[in-house]
Amino acid sequence: MIAIYPGSFDPITYGHIDIIERAASLVDKLIIVIMANDEKSGTFTFAERKQMIEHTTSHLSNVSVVVGEGLTAEFAQKMGARVMIRGIRAVSDYEYEMQLATANMTIAPDVETVFILAKPQYSFLSSSTAKTIARNNGKLDSFVDDYVAEKLMEKYRKGVEIY
Amino acid sequence: MIAIYPGSFDPITYGHIDIIERAASLVDKLIIVIMANDEKSGTFTFAERKQMIEHTTSHLSNVSVVVGEGLTAEFAQKMGARVMIRGIRAVSDYEYEMQLATANMTIAPDVETVFILAKPQYSFLSSSTAKTIARNNGKLDSFVDDYVAEKLMEKYRKGVEIY
Amino acid sequence: MIAIYPGSFDPITYGHIDIIERAASLVDKLIIVIMANDEKSGTFTFAERKQMIEHTTSHLSNVSVVVGEGLTAEFAQKMGARVMIRGIRAVSDYEYEMQLATANMTIAPDVETVFILAKPQYSFLSSSTAKTIARNNGKLDSFVDDYVAEKLMEKYRKGVEIY
Amino acid sequence: MIAIYPGSFDPITYGHIDIIERAASLVDKLIIVIMANDEKSGTFTFAERKQMIEHTTSHLSNVSVVVGEGLTAEFAQKMGARVMIRGIRAVSDYEYEMQLATANMTIAPDVETVFILAKPQYSFLSSSTAKTIARNNGKLDSFVDDYVAEKLMEKYRKGVEIY
Amino acid sequence: MIAIYPGSFDPITYGHIDIIERAASLVDKLIIVIMANDEKSGTFTFAERKQMIEHTTSHLSNVSVVVGEGLTAEFAQKMGARVMIRGIRAVSDYEYEMQLATANMTIAPDVETVFILAKPQYSFLSSSTAKTIARNNGKLDSFVDDYVAEKLMEKYRKGVEIY
Amino acid sequence: MIAIYPGSFDPITYGHIDIIERAASLVDKLIIVIMANDEKSGTFTFAERKQMIEHTTSHLSNVSVVVGEGLTAEFAQKMGARVMIRGIRAVSDYEYEMQLATANMTIAPDVETVFILAKPQYSFLSSSTAKTIARNNGKLDSFVDDYVAEKLMEKYRKGVEIY
Repeated sequence: MIAIYPGSFDPITYGHIDIIERAASLVDKLIIVIMANDEKSGTFTFAERKQMIEHTTSHLSNVSVVVGEGLTAEFAQKMGARVMIRGIRAVSDYEYEMQLATANMTIAPDVETVFILAKPQYSFLSSSTAKTIARNNGKLDSFVDDYVAEKLMEKYRKGVEIY
Repeated sequence: MIAIYPGSFDPITYGHIDIIERAASLVDKLIIVIMANDEKSGTFTFAERKQMIEHTTSHLSNVSVVVGEGLTAEFAQKMGARVMIRGIRAVSDYEYEMQLATANMTIAPDVETVFILAKPQYSFLSSSTAKTIARNNGKLDSFVDDYVAEKLMEKYRKGVEIY
Repeated sequence: MIAIYPGSFDPITYGHIDIIERAASLVDKLIIVIMANDEKSGTFTFAERKQMIEHTTSHLSNVSVVVGEGLTAEFAQKMGARVMIRGIRAVSDYEYEMQLATANMTIAPDVETVFILAKPQYSFLSSSTAKTIARNNGKLDSFVDDYVAEKLMEKYRKGVEIY
Repeated sequence: MIAIYPGSFDPITYGHIDIIERAASLVDKLIIVIMANDEKSGTFTFAERKQMIEHTTSHLSNVSVVVGEGLTAEFAQKMGARVMIRGIRAVSDYEYEMQLATANMTIAPDVETVFILAKPQYSFLSSSTAKTIARNNGKLDSFVDDYVAEKLMEKYRKGVEIY
Repeated sequence: MIAIYPGSFDPITYGHIDIIERAASLVDKLIIVIMANDEKSGTFTFAERKQMIEHTTSHLSNVSVVVGEGLTAEFAQKMGARVMIRGIRAVSDYEYEMQLATANMTIAPDVETVFILAKPQYSFLSSSTAKTIARNNGKLDSFVDDYVAEKLMEKYRKGVEIY
Repeated sequence: MIAIYPGSFDPITYGHIDIIERAASLVDKLIIVIMANDEKSGTFTFAERKQMIEHTTSHLSNVSVVVGEGLTAEFAQKMGARVMIRGIRAVSDYEYEMQLATANMTIAPDVETVFILAKPQYSFLSSSTAKTIARNNGKLDSFVDDYVAEKLMEKYRKGVEIY
């Protein structure tokens, strides 16, 4: 069984890593897909995001990272994936995910969207929370891996506008 | 009984058409109102949106299309409408609609907001879903009328940035 | 246009009356339907509920009250109603109503469920809130009509167990 | 990979069957678990529920049915299952499921709860909807398999109180 | 400032204790109120619930426990409390609490309902979760204090039906 | 007890004033904090927002206004505040607030986020509702104080783009 886990990962947080570890233990191969539409408006380039994901998931031998393009459900088909993993945290997430999953049922009926619940301690955690904290010089160690924290602080020190 | 059905219709989807058909069977006259604040940020001009609505609702004799301006509830009053139709799909819609309807109760107490539920197969469907699919060359036939699909693909081929 | 407004009305509150007044102004005839499955488990008999509804809606000439039976959507058909009115207050209401409306689309596709939003001051108000307050000798005048308040206090004084 | 799909299945609906078919295609073995706490308050006995599930899933060779007992997550462990399948339909479902899944993370950390979204046309459908329709002699064919419909009508004709 | 924290506490969980500790640090005096309507349908008597609360909050010098009666908001007034503390965990909680708080605004406008968010690790935890686990001989130590766990297991061994 | 009430207040509405009045009666000192990240994208400058807040809360002797900076929870610590007040109106608010409050538990565990429910008549009311109405020359007197209404109409007449 091959599964993809798509997202913007701008940057990867402990919440993503939790989902990745749990999903990786359920499938033969987990492909993390950085979706392509968002590069311009992002904080990190795709190359930077990919490097941070690879660094923080290097302990998982069946996980790989690619940059995606086109419709996610169709990209899953191209990668030979039967399953698309999604993490859900809150009701507003859930609604958005439900609409997306329903659209994907029409676009690619053979790709099943499967939801895994984030651990409670990560239920509030998003990439933008991490960036807000970095921008304000707050402590990042409960939110992202040290390697990612360093990259975030670096961006911030350079005066790059981070959203 | 005159009713309005306001929205941005950028472009009209099968979800909108479902609501229009059902609302039109309940009232004497249904006026579809393209609300004016959004032209600049839209994908289609008001003229294009109007044409697509007229094309896809031409089988409904008591339906007409106008471009609105000002506050929607006050525009309803100008059109002699007692009822404002709103389609609801998801809980997040519902909350937004509830806030809007409550504000409108204060602004125009004589105009009643009336909600009609989208059919389940259209519950995930929005104009932006259709545009995402068009931008990625996906199949549009479950989402919009052929006429609208053609217009969407045309925009896309011209390289117009579609959000 | 004939519409029904089904419910248990055990007893009728100011929230119900608000919905009834607004719905009655939109249709030719509004039939309030006390649904039949609930008599045993209710606080008031159907006859008592009917009397309280008739008393508190006597100022509305196009409103009548009946006791229903069977599936609500099919009962609407029997009454010649094209529209079923539902009031919505909260998200949990909304979800339940959405499921009900979707089931009814299948059972009686020619009967349209139409939602009207309760006024904000009644958004928290249910028959059971009124009963809780009555059971504890609280002031009822913001919640139910004086006539209904009297009937509620009477039940309470008789020591009838009110849920 | 072994997965369980727990529930009360009182009785099995087309919504359950949809989830079962999709889950069965993702795992090596899917065990449907009728959870034990509910027999007394149910409409059908465990034996009847089991028979109806077996009848309507006989086309799926990797699906079996058992009656469970104890905590569901611990029962999953006993069955050698790494995955617990849950279908979600609405936000209120989602919240309940999220609380359950979080409790199960503590009770049996090695069993992963995995959510699959019901198809839109089944998003409103529950066993109790089917029973309400049966009790009122409504048409059941959009809701449950013919075999289950017959069993439901039989219960109803016998005058058994169905909740 | 005097505050009450009303609930059924049948029995007290770590989730309740978290709210109590945090609330107690904000006010001069915190009165835990076991509300009276529920004794018959509960698992523990009021005396047992009170004892378990007193045992598990004995480290908090400004906390006391009483059994309430009547409407909670009116009981707050009788106790001289300006504030009613409520813990919220999930959206469905939130809606119920919002309705209750709105009703209380009308009943006792001088008593302010104040919400404190449960810690994420307790967001799924309720008294009934704890009872389900006890009934099935599961491990209780992440859910309730050892003293409460013992009382729960005792009830269970006696064969008392626990809901 | 010192509390802060953070927000963008662009501009202050009757909904904010309701929360401020109720919060101010519960604490010794309430500091309204205009959070700093938003100035550029706002309609009013911080100086204008501060002046409008001071004007409309001048009847409350224990209320002051400052412009904040950095992370809100850390700013609360700098101001010596133990409590952060948040108003909640709708479920979508609630989810966002819950995520924020959970993040703040980690950043500043000694600052407690406390939620107060907006009065029902203000449950739909936001600064952007007020601005939409002003932009369309609607009546503002149910939404903002006369002083604020004047400032809003002034902005509007100057042709400033208001979002």
